Amino acid sequence: MDNEKKLDGIRHSLAHLLAAAVLKKFPDAKLAIGPVIENGFYYDFLLPRSLAPEDLKDFEKDMKKMIGGKLSFTGKEVSVAEAKEIFKDQPFKLELIEEFSDEDKTLTTYKTGEVFLDLCRGGHVDNTSEINADAFKLEKIAGAYWRGDEKNQMLQRIYGLAFSSKDDLDAYLKMMEEAKKRDHRKLGKELGLFTIIDEVGPGLPLFYPKGAILRRTVENYITEIQEAKGYVPIWIPHITKGELYKISGHLDKYDAMYPPMDLKDEAKYYLKPMNCPHFMMLYKSIPHSYRELPVRYTCTTTNYRYEKSGELSGLTRVRSLTQDDCHVFARPDQIEGEVNLMLDMIGEVYKTFGFDNFRVRISTHDPENKEKYIGDPEIWKNSEEALSKLIATRGWKYDIGVGEAAFYGPKLDFIFKDVLGRDWQLSTIQLDMNLPGPERFALEYTNADGKKGQPVVIHRAILGSTERFLGILIEHFAGAFPLWLAPVQATIIPVSEKFSEYSEKVMNSLTAVGIRAEIYAADETLGKRIREAEMQKIPYVLVVGEKEESTGEVSVRHYKRGQEGTLSLKEIAEKMKKEVDEKTI
Amino acid sequence: MDNEKKLDGIRHSLAHLLAAAVLKKFPDAKLAIGPVIENGFYYDFLLPRSLAPEDLKDFEKDMKKMIGGKLSFTGKEVSVAEAKEIFKDQPFKLELIEEFSDEDKTLTTYKTGEVFLDLCRGGHVDNTSEINADAFKLEKIAGAYWRGDEKNQMLQRIYGLAFSSKDDLDAYLKMMEEAKKRDHRKLGKELGLFTIIDEVGPGLPLFYPKGAILRRTVENYITEIQEAKGYVPIWIPHITKGELYKISGHLDKYDAMYPPMDLKDEAKYYLKPMNCPHFMMLYKSIPHSYRELPVRYTCTTTNYRYEKSGELSGLTRVRSLTQDDCHVFARPDQIEGEVNLMLDMIGEVYKTFGFDNFRVRISTHDPENKEKYIGDPEIWKNSEEALSKLIATRGWKYDIGVGEAAFYGPKLDFIFKDVLGRDWQLSTIQLDMNLPGPERFALEYTNADGKKGQPVVIHRAILGSTERFLGILIEHFAGAFPLWLAPVQATIIPVSEKFSEYSEKVMNSLTAVGIRAEIYAADETLGKRIREAEMQKIPYVLVVGEKEESTGEVSVRHYKRGQEGTLSLKEIAEKMKKEVDEKTI
Repeated sequence: MDNEKKLDGIRHSLAHLLAAAVLKKFPDAKLAIGPVIENGFYYDFLLPRSLAPEDLKDFEKDMKKMIGGKLSFTGKEVSVAEAKEIFKDQPFKLELIEEFSDEDKTLTTYKTGEVFLDLCRGGHVDNTSEINADAFKLEKIAGAYWRGDEKNQMLQRIYGLAFSSKDDLDAYLKMMEEAKKRDHRKLGKELGLFTIIDEVGPGLPLFYPKGAILRRTVENYITEIQEAKGYVPIWIPHITKGELYKISGHLDKYDAMYPPMDLKDEAKYYLKPMNCPHFMMLYKSIPHSYRELPVRYTCTTTNYRYEKSGELSGLTRVRSLTQDDCHVFARPDQIEGEVNLMLDMIGEVYKTFGFDNFRVRISTHDPENKEKYIGDPEIWKNSEEALSKLIATRGWKYDIGVGEAAFYGPKLDFIFKDVLGRDWQLSTIQLDMNLPGPERFALEYTNADGKKGQPVVIHRAILGSTERFLGILIEHFAGAFPLWLAPVQATIIPVSEKFSEYSEKVMNSLTAVGIRAEIYAADETLGKRIREAEMQKIPYVLVVGEKEESTGEVSVRHYKRGQEGTLSLKEIAEKMKKEVDEKTI
Repeated sequence: MDNEKKLDGIRHSLAHLLAAAVLKKFPDAKLAIGPVIENGFYYDFLLPRSLAPEDLKDFEKDMKKMIGGKLSFTGKEVSVAEAKEIFKDQPFKLELIEEFSDEDKTLTTYKTGEVFLDLCRGGHVDNTSEINADAFKLEKIAGAYWRGDEKNQMLQRIYGLAFSSKDDLDAYLKMMEEAKKRDHRKLGKELGLFTIIDEVGPGLPLFYPKGAILRRTVENYITEIQEAKGYVPIWIPHITKGELYKISGHLDKYDAMYPPMDLKDEAKYYLKPMNCPHFMMLYKSIPHSYRELPVRYTCTTTNYRYEKSGELSGLTRVRSLTQDDCHVFARPDQIEGEVNLMLDMIGEVYKTFGFDNFRVRISTHDPENKEKYIGDPEIWKNSEEALSKLIATRGWKYDIGVGEAAFYGPKLDFIFKDVLGRDWQLSTIQLDMNLPGPERFALEYTNADGKKGQPVVIHRAILGSTERFLGILIEHFAGAFPLWLAPVQATIIPVSEKFSEYSEKVMNSLTAVGIRAEIYAADETLGKRIREAEMQKIPYVLVVGEKEESTGEVSVRHYKRGQEGTLSLKEIAEKMKKEVDEKTI
């Protein structure tokens, strides 16, 4: 915590030094604001000309000099009149002064050595000697509207990175470089996985054949896992009358819904933003006995949420998201068993994808605010303890988010840390323990005594959404997918045209066992074709020439493991099939 | 043709006899119109009270008497004034007279014996003796608005069936009775396949687990067939900006589109009513060389068409229809080969489903109206001849619809006759030979010489739509699906609770080879459970008791073939797996 605060002080101080350096080079610069952000800081300026990367180098150099100068930061309380006089040439500062004085805030200025004075509420190092001059870097220039409002003037924003040590900075830079290489939007294009097309719209990715195979492989795997555990698929349409969302309450409360399609003579129709109401209506449409419960419906189906276009990003933030959604309708005595079955599945899926670094966030009720929740506090407490125990028993990391539960039941969120250490929220289990789903939809089942009971509904998604999960997968594996996921699993490269017939034979022996193979015909040099296959990160490259044809073999080169000698057609087919069947990572 | 005309005369004459019978019973009846329809006729009346089934019997009896009376039909031209005088008490007829006179039509009346005079343009038998009194039947009563307009008065419509012979009538009645038993809406409910829910909306079926499995089995089969022929899956979102449909022209021309979702700040978004524009944009988003062509994109994806609610019917006419859609982008020299590949697939699919009774409708251009079509008439002629030859070579029945082609290319429609002799249009192949798709979207590929070529687009669906195809399948098989399609393939019935453990063992040995099996626990009598499994039309019922457990066998009963003796667990698993793998009908 202290370190965190100290680092913030360093970052804030560097923002001042940056402003000082900018003012020195551009005495007419108008200064806006310079806050601390994650990994560093920024400062916005109105300047007489556009900045170039060289300017950043100058500023950096000057900032290092100031750091070396061991300048002290000294604060001073000033009156509004004094402040206005000091910043009379700084219109943005004057605007802030007006505003702060309206709000009756105390105004302070901070002076850096003798070189720079800024309007600031404090939070700096005492002396620039506390800053490691090698642990910061001016990162980039971007445009930004004054106060983030596009009706205002466009300013130039300089971003800086800053850490306590050079090692930390280097590690961050390396991670960023790696993240850039792994960027799923970049790889999605390079590997021919998906695209976004203006005329179709932002946040609505279209998948090329390779991306479509990746989608299907992941989705089919999740379906298989579920069916093996007694989940049964259903199918629901993507649109509905508004009536359904009146019952569920979404029409009033859910604000990411697309506007209605108004069929004036009939009804308003909506794209579904989530599946619960459809699932509940299907359950409700037939009678259920206590003996059939739990009913475990699952469906991989697309939802539509109107996210702001500025917030969309490749596959990780889309407007059409396909969820591996499931709703379990259970008797209260079945909750624990059902949650445990879900944990089994989630554990199994994460293991398959090699996602071993994850933790569970348990969102519980707040015992200090019992009135916020419906149902018996004793039941809440017991369920939450049972959930924690189920997680702890597995040796999984977890933390508790007190007061983060929905008003109708506790929730489990699974947060996966990828190979670059970034957090991604994936699976969710939400208990609809005391309403509102079952109540609003008047769900019921018949007990042994003929009386009606109300089922508990457990909502669950493993991947979260196919699109987002694929985005994460692409970045986690840097596009070099495990064999079972790879859209093309083997490229067969004949040394020359002479071996195209043998290549066909190789391909047939692979496709016969379900391997996705293709031939890279001899219309380019061998070297170029091998490099291209590597660029495409295809797991197996099988080169065939004179020797291979004569012995009925292939020369095997694995994307990650390199040369693997020669294998007979039977051996390579068996080897690959085994790797696919076992979903080797 | 002559027979057809004669039958129409009989039906038309019967409509007159019906009106005469109605007038006799209800002298104040107001007569609307009484046309010939498929299989019979109807007549609309405004009557002082609602008709009951007994009334139909009276009318029928009276009509038979008139037939026996050998009444002649005699026509007479009348002036408008005469007509108005004759029908002065018949307001609907007066309305028609006004209208006909405005249109300068000649008015005729037809007299039946001495009993009845109607305003009519003719087309009767000369004498009622030509009508077989045993070959007609008054079928049902329904409400109908005058002139089909709901703003008008509601009338009572009487439907009659009429044929040349009693045998024809009986055959039709039997077929109708069978069709009623096979009605997919009825079976869909009884077999737990799908439902339609008011709050979700008409034409938007939701599928229960059994229906979802049926859907998936059919769709996966079609995908497999396509992939084996080199088609590659893509994935496209279900919505798009209106911009896409401006390019395609659908926005102006396609009237079954759902109204837009108006995101005022951004764009109007639409549900896709068809897939072509998305496919074309995906093709266009990357460069293509002549060497990669044909590009064969396929996607099983849902379209949305706003059909009038009165026209919706179960699965056969829906608003959300999932198409097994494919677009092939080919060089002109590849058209024939690509169409032939499509015919291969269609032939294979029909064979698998046992759809051996089908014909092809070839829609061609009209050489008398060359100006209606774009492109070289010679190319049209050649392509059409090539298509006919491809069909004829296979020995498939076909007929030619001259002038039925779209303005940009000829079309093939496949019409399947089901077990009840009803026609269903299934597959379609549409050549987009000369625009508009490739042109509007400016599609291209690079030729060997570096110049740009424009691909031909071939549109194709095999099933048409999953929903409609399932409706047809359910009726064709009367819900007794071939093993590979059956949602539940085997029900294991333990004679008593004592054998539940052995039942589990049987089930595991079946699920191990991918068979969808379930246990029907001993909470009902054996007989009741066997009957229930038969009602559910489950292909295999496996009964297990003392004897079976001791020998490690099951007692096999097949839904269609009856008792099949006892088999070991290995034998029944192998037998069923073979039947599934071979898709035995």
